[in-house]
Amino acid sequence: MKTRVIPQQVIARKRDGHPLSEHELEGFLKDYLDGHVGDDQMAAFLMAVYFRGMRDRELDVLVDVMLHSGEVLERGGAGAPRVDKHSTGGVGDKVSLVLAPLAAELGLVVPMMSGRGLGHTGGTLDKLESIPGFRTRISLDRFDRILRDVGCAMIGQTEEIAPLDRRLYALRDVTGTVPSLPLITASIMSKKLAENLDGLVLDVKVGEGAFLSRMEDARALARAMVGVGAARGLAVTAVLTAMDRPLGRMVGNALEVREAVDCLAGGGPGDLREVVTELAAEMSLAGGVVPGLAEGRQRAAEVLAGGGALTRFERLVAAQGGSLQLSDKGYGLPAAPVTRVVAANRAGVIARIDPHALGYGVIPMGGGRTRQDQDVDPRVGFEVRVRVGDGVLRGDPLAVVHGATEDDLFIGARVIHEAVTVADGPEGSPLPQVLERITA
Amino acid sequence: MKTRVIPQQVIARKRDGHPLSEHELEGFLKDYLDGHVGDDQMAAFLMAVYFRGMRDRELDVLVDVMLHSGEVLERGGAGAPRVDKHSTGGVGDKVSLVLAPLAAELGLVVPMMSGRGLGHTGGTLDKLESIPGFRTRISLDRFDRILRDVGCAMIGQTEEIAPLDRRLYALRDVTGTVPSLPLITASIMSKKLAENLDGLVLDVKVGEGAFLSRMEDARALARAMVGVGAARGLAVTAVLTAMDRPLGRMVGNALEVREAVDCLAGGGPGDLREVVTELAAEMSLAGGVVPGLAEGRQRAAEVLAGGGALTRFERLVAAQGGSLQLSDKGYGLPAAPVTRVVAANRAGVIARIDPHALGYGVIPMGGGRTRQDQDVDPRVGFEVRVRVGDGVLRGDPLAVVHGATEDDLFIGARVIHEAVTVADGPEGSPLPQVLERITA
Repeated sequence: MKTRVIPQQVIARKRDGHPLSEHELEGFLKDYLDGHVGDDQMAAFLMAVYFRGMRDRELDVLVDVMLHSGEVLERGGAGAPRVDKHSTGGVGDKVSLVLAPLAAELGLVVPMMSGRGLGHTGGTLDKLESIPGFRTRISLDRFDRILRDVGCAMIGQTEEIAPLDRRLYALRDVTGTVPSLPLITASIMSKKLAENLDGLVLDVKVGEGAFLSRMEDARALARAMVGVGAARGLAVTAVLTAMDRPLGRMVGNALEVREAVDCLAGGGPGDLREVVTELAAEMSLAGGVVPGLAEGRQRAAEVLAGGGALTRFERLVAAQGGSLQLSDKGYGLPAAPVTRVVAANRAGVIARIDPHALGYGVIPMGGGRTRQDQDVDPRVGFEVRVRVGDGVLRGDPLAVVHGATEDDLFIGARVIHEAVTVADGPEGSPLPQVLERITA
Repeated sequence: MKTRVIPQQVIARKRDGHPLSEHELEGFLKDYLDGHVGDDQMAAFLMAVYFRGMRDRELDVLVDVMLHSGEVLERGGAGAPRVDKHSTGGVGDKVSLVLAPLAAELGLVVPMMSGRGLGHTGGTLDKLESIPGFRTRISLDRFDRILRDVGCAMIGQTEEIAPLDRRLYALRDVTGTVPSLPLITASIMSKKLAENLDGLVLDVKVGEGAFLSRMEDARALARAMVGVGAARGLAVTAVLTAMDRPLGRMVGNALEVREAVDCLAGGGPGDLREVVTELAAEMSLAGGVVPGLAEGRQRAAEVLAGGGALTRFERLVAAQGGSLQLSDKGYGLPAAPVTRVVAANRAGVIARIDPHALGYGVIPMGGGRTRQDQDVDPRVGFEVRVRVGDGVLRGDPLAVVHGATEDDLFIGARVIHEAVTVADGPEGSPLPQVLERITA
């Protein structure tokens, strides 16, 4: 078979900042799928995209070729609106675990495809798999059946969905080309478009613990994704939320599931509840099941308080093979064999809780990964006992480290002292939990 | 074996413009040689270097790892100074064929390793191989013996010399990462340092037919190479010469050998003779066999006129298995079966002869290549009969096209009309043949 384009010519044109025609870019991508463009050529191209960006038209072509490299989910029998949420990833971000059953309880169908943790951010799949028996690898048929029965289901990206995105992501991961706005946009949107949705809500994290730390970058990503959705008739709403500190108090897979269950039972930390409620309201509005955001927030709060979301979560867990013991204190989740309380070594005010340090801190304890193929220990992590602005005395507990070994406790204690700054007074002010809303 | 570095971290640091430590860069390159860094990762790295450049210290590390990835030539018995020339490549550039035997006749040893043509520029190896029987692939032992017997020998880069450079060049060729100043510098200098020289003269071409069209880029490349040489005790002199028009009148492999032989016999076009004489003078000075450039130019002109250089070329050709019939008009070189004179279709002044158009023009006739692995037809090419500034009448010959087929003659005629501009008067003024000299 002849190639559609001369690969090095397409690479050189992107390198030099020339616009690529639809024929050139589509040909280059399809030649890659067919094996006529090598990983070496694609890697050079991706790095050139990192430096030169992509025009709107190029981004459209990339999204379309990614989407149509695989299957688009069929819409199950039920007529309920299909709405999903995607987060750009943060530390302590267990929102999906609460939001999927909550949104189902609010009358939506939530076909959620999530990812694994990498670097300092956790992943929903890893968290779910800390529930004994829970399977995130199921067939699309089974996924569809659970969606119809339970209203929500949670899996990883399957072989059938956007295989070009999977190949490019694996390549970007090893070639230093992950942090590119158009590449991130295309990767997220091609998968979400494959879910065949009526509405999509994006949780774009902002701050040092987020992939994008600056407001303007977060806004640019939000606008790009809203634009890609709009061009294809998918209503996308982006909500910018704070990630200058971890979300909630738990960091670590099983610990985060515990906190999510607390939240589903109407409790849990206030910041987590606020984000969940806001995103549930946006999903409800996008799905047309409430007339406005205020009503959406109120309904979400009612459902959380009433326990319906927790029951729905139990059904989801059971449908995917898992089991929880909600009557137990630890909900039947795997627990770390050793723990240590880390205390403040001076009096003062909590000036800062660094999400980066906490997120990277679980890696040497085995709770995170630096490469896609590594296993994680679900038991280890941190339970942060303070919030920014709290006053503490010397000896007050800052956090509890959950470790697999005594060594982990030493490592973890050092992480806590690095991540939690006790100072004479506050340093700047933390970001509001919900910052901004961007929509078409 | 453990890897020395985390590849994606090194790539990301170069991508973000951070300086790489010696450990990082050397580790990354050695991990590549050992197969722990993939071609995909190296391609992304090379593209990042294209955008970010390299610091002097990084360039030094790259040159050293390239050089020591292979062998350094032994210095044969003879005590004569070893001096070589390298050209950045142009259209009609047959200088090496004249210069190597001329410099040997002037008392130097010239261990010349050359390349093949690619894109619009020709290559010395392709030209030599148009001589019946001439072998450019010989063992380093044989190369060394010929050097001692004849004073000059001409081969391609062997397996033993700078294998890292060969691998990187092949990768750059397919990934759009050829035109990067530090990568070009390292590629040239690692090979030339492997020749174990006393002096090196660089012919840096400037103008539209050159790899670098702008003076400041040519100067930057010249300075980078002079600097790399100086840091290793090798005296490097760069001469910037004109490539806003082809050099000489012939473009095409066998045709260029014919013109080189004319020059060796004391004739040939004046521009070729001027460049050859200047570079021979620089080589003589670098080797210490003349007290100054003026004496060097005079000696070179005398040797060309006296026929000694031609005799030396015959010995070189014979030593490498080739044969020429100098008594024949065509010197026993392969000749094209069909030719056509292309005439001016208006009267006027030759305003421009575009080297790019001529260089690319031989490719569809089979005389050049777009990929390293293609064969070339030595017979085809152009014999340009006019120079910039000449007056012509309608019907006057502009050039003779030498083709393998009648089709080639049609293609070639179109190329000539595109490349040669006949206008009412001159457009700007051509660059001086020898522009500038850069040395430490």
